[in-house]
Amino acid sequence: MSEAARDARHEHGYIHDKDGYLRRLRRIEGQARGLQRMVEEEQYCIDILTQVSAMTKALQSVALGLLDEHLSHCVVDAAKAGGPEAEHKIKEASDAIGRLVRS
Amino acid sequence: MSEAARDARHEHGYIHDKDGYLRRLRRIEGQARGLQRMVEEEQYCIDILTQVSAMTKALQSVALGLLDEHLSHCVVDAAKAGGPEAEHKIKEASDAIGRLVRS
Amino acid sequence: MSEAARDARHEHGYIHDKDGYLRRLRRIEGQARGLQRMVEEEQYCIDILTQVSAMTKALQSVALGLLDEHLSHCVVDAAKAGGPEAEHKIKEASDAIGRLVRS
Amino acid sequence: MSEAARDARHEHGYIHDKDGYLRRLRRIEGQARGLQRMVEEEQYCIDILTQVSAMTKALQSVALGLLDEHLSHCVVDAAKAGGPEAEHKIKEASDAIGRLVRS
Repeated sequence: MSEAARDARHEHGYIHDKDGYLRRLRRIEGQARGLQRMVEEEQYCIDILTQVSAMTKALQSVALGLLDEHLSHCVVDAAKAGGPEAEHKIKEASDAIGRLVRS
Repeated sequence: MSEAARDARHEHGYIHDKDGYLRRLRRIEGQARGLQRMVEEEQYCIDILTQVSAMTKALQSVALGLLDEHLSHCVVDAAKAGGPEAEHKIKEASDAIGRLVRS
Repeated sequence: MSEAARDARHEHGYIHDKDGYLRRLRRIEGQARGLQRMVEEEQYCIDILTQVSAMTKALQSVALGLLDEHLSHCVVDAAKAGGPEAEHKIKEASDAIGRLVRS
Repeated sequence: MSEAARDARHEHGYIHDKDGYLRRLRRIEGQARGLQRMVEEEQYCIDILTQVSAMTKALQSVALGLLDEHLSHCVVDAAKAGGPEAEHKIKEASDAIGRLVRS
């Protein structure tokens, strides 16, 4: 766990629709199991790739939702407080966005 | 299942390292469960996003491996046979590549 | 020009290294001309695709740099001011990030 | 120029709609110039990012079109001929697809 993570444990409730995210992640877990079955049964490769694309889109959508919550809460709060912590939070968010764009 | 999928059931063994793919997909399934735990515990958002990026990369890598096998076997075989089936297979592969690039 | 754009005209100097960005965009323009020459001369398709990938990466890198500046200045300023404008700026940034991730 | 590129110079006409591709690439070059103007005038950052996303999509679409032509001609011809050249062409195409997916 990063240093920032430890601090953040105290910011309870930053994810507004936690149940919604858990439901979406369970569906993604189910897609990962479905892919194993498709490979196990040697289903048609193109159909497997279609499933991988759908799963990637679902993951991206979760990431974009979480990022929006992060900007709306952690980053806005840090910006209000100002100082080096605000800069750190922006840098950290930009790096995370870069990883999402490149993945 | 698409029409092409039914035909393909007879092309057993097109995935050369099936165990390798199953192992990678089980790891991806584990990452999906890990993400649920992170959301459940409200871990730091940036750490969750880092995990999503890693999982997306792992999925893409599986997709690129499967696509390479598909081109090497199904598409090459169809190209040798020639005719409309070859054209259909190329069109289908190009569409799948488009979905991967855009997802 | 969007409404937000008109307001922003007054925030001069939000791009810190303007010359750097202009230099990178001129290089990207040169890559676009290079691609036309490659197509004109019917150079090898794979070499053309390699150039397209390099150009896409260069564009993404410019976008991520500009986004970082936008978060550091416009979004931080709006967050400090608070109110609906802060929410609007976050929503707008999240939408732009979504377009980058999906493109 | 790669070795493969030299060979390929003899396969004239592999790009069927050369004028169409040149027109699209000129439009992309124009978008690159438009971005310079936007940065020069310090237009609103989000509007610049929207243009970058549109340009990235246009580039991807050109790449997917060229890749489809490459698979339909070079790869199909190599597959018919068979042997190590067929394997080389598939490997090369898979690598190019990987670069597109990751860029």
